Amino acid sequence: MNISEIGGEFGLIERITRDPASKQIIKGIGDDAAVVRFNNNYLIFTIDSQVEGDHFCFDYFTPEQIGKKAVEVNVSDIGAMGGKPKFFLVSLIIPKTTEVEIIENIYKGFWKICSKYDIEIIGGNIAHGKQLIIDISMIGEAPKQNLKYRSDAKPGDAIMVSGYLGSSTAGLNLFLNKISGFDEVKRKYLEPEAKFHKVEPFLQYINAMIDVSDGLASEVTRICEQSKTGAIIYGDSVPIEPITREAGAACHKDALDFALYGGEDFELVYTVSEKNLDKVKGFVVGKITDEKTIKILKNGKEEILTGHGYDHFLNNVNI
Amino acid sequence: MNISEIGGEFGLIERITRDPASKQIIKGIGDDAAVVRFNNNYLIFTIDSQVEGDHFCFDYFTPEQIGKKAVEVNVSDIGAMGGKPKFFLVSLIIPKTTEVEIIENIYKGFWKICSKYDIEIIGGNIAHGKQLIIDISMIGEAPKQNLKYRSDAKPGDAIMVSGYLGSSTAGLNLFLNKISGFDEVKRKYLEPEAKFHKVEPFLQYINAMIDVSDGLASEVTRICEQSKTGAIIYGDSVPIEPITREAGAACHKDALDFALYGGEDFELVYTVSEKNLDKVKGFVVGKITDEKTIKILKNGKEEILTGHGYDHFLNNVNI
Repeated sequence: MNISEIGGEFGLIERITRDPASKQIIKGIGDDAAVVRFNNNYLIFTIDSQVEGDHFCFDYFTPEQIGKKAVEVNVSDIGAMGGKPKFFLVSLIIPKTTEVEIIENIYKGFWKICSKYDIEIIGGNIAHGKQLIIDISMIGEAPKQNLKYRSDAKPGDAIMVSGYLGSSTAGLNLFLNKISGFDEVKRKYLEPEAKFHKVEPFLQYINAMIDVSDGLASEVTRICEQSKTGAIIYGDSVPIEPITREAGAACHKDALDFALYGGEDFELVYTVSEKNLDKVKGFVVGKITDEKTIKILKNGKEEILTGHGYDHFLNNVNI
Repeated sequence: MNISEIGGEFGLIERITRDPASKQIIKGIGDDAAVVRFNNNYLIFTIDSQVEGDHFCFDYFTPEQIGKKAVEVNVSDIGAMGGKPKFFLVSLIIPKTTEVEIIENIYKGFWKICSKYDIEIIGGNIAHGKQLIIDISMIGEAPKQNLKYRSDAKPGDAIMVSGYLGSSTAGLNLFLNKISGFDEVKRKYLEPEAKFHKVEPFLQYINAMIDVSDGLASEVTRICEQSKTGAIIYGDSVPIEPITREAGAACHKDALDFALYGGEDFELVYTVSEKNLDKVKGFVVGKITDEKTIKILKNGKEEILTGHGYDHFLNNVNI
């Protein structure tokens, strides 16, 4: 059995992981990032790779955009835990024929995002390989009360998203279909941004949280698995911008599928108790249930969601 | 100009790095690992990759050995700062055709080294790629007084190593030359081990320290660059086991070259003031000088060391 046959991430994860033994580990494997306590400091650790050909290609991205994206996806993981990014390490795998200018411009992208969030590069490593890979390992921090996990959703919670979905996948599809125009949508794919600032003002009212790396359907499934709940997703309420729908139509695709099964929107998905709904912002897109299934309501019809959407190994999988 | 033409690591590093701005960063880019202060905790961060074809190949290594090596090299970097490893994250790049059993056995290797050092895996990420790559990002800790840097060598210090050198490169050469026997030497290549325990008892008497990833000549050069000193290496005093010399001879190579320009011995190189020499263990292999050159004394003749030895990008380079 090889990696592509194992049927999603969960079979493999069970085979290779163990429960944390150290009491310092507040949250180990199975969330957007790990949380470790060092005396009174709650530090958040995540690692994420960007692989040439899988996560970016030089036909669409400038080196600076690649650098920016590699940092933003890690900032998004830290934010999904309720934390602020602080420092990061860079591991570069570089083909020997790579022009030095490309690496310099990737670093320009890194440093621009560093300025944006007031964070710093503290070290790294370079090795050779067959394709360009950027692995970023980021350290964040949060006060204890701000920490948010996938595992704290409660039956009855509203499922919310912080913004419009599907535009990043729409952008990718525009490139793949060689459709001109739609620059604004394409930019969402080329220059994704972490969205923590949107939820920060009302963090205290959020129960569970995750960022959208792999589409709303996947993220809700992950919350339900960790929280041991079910969910119903209101398909017709998923917020999609008109221009994203137009881009979908131009690609002969349904933009709702981009939102549910695409990814890399980096909006936050969070659950909120009914009584706190007036204290938060965002779009209600479903409800946490005490069943074990995840359903989707589309055009007035309920369907059981099967699978997590796309082949997960197309994208990054947290382990 | 591409990466292989840039002439070593230092040209590139100057182009992409900046001095740390945050006062929390005690040591940033340019050492074996970064040191960051969080209140009273001094945390050590490093990242290191193992690339199929460059750092390991399945012809020689079992998957478990690959897993063990990937962890040990990071433990060695933490130890070279004077620290103890605590936790790590794993980023795996896996070709789609990889058998799941290989990944499970790599993790068996991880967990064995976790037990050895009482450390834990706190998270990770999987993505697809053209070759198997293991990127490990490790977090360590040290009391402030134990922290050791490359930059603290003083003219007059003795340069010491914690043990025999050259055996790992001898092991690799035995494989490349298809020479049978020498199992003990080959094992040094296949199962490298961090050596921090050797220097821990007399850490207080060490000025500068680094681990041997790329050969003694490279490591002494790095200490001198960071400490703004020169050095003389006593070529005839470099400790090499007789079996390593025999392995070298079988490969028609000089084992001293393995020690100077090979790598992956993971012994520690450290400098000690003359007055403290009776309080430490190890082999004296040179002296720190106040010149700007690095010389080597061989067969009674002094030569200026040119270059750092091997092509650095064959191996990992800390940035």
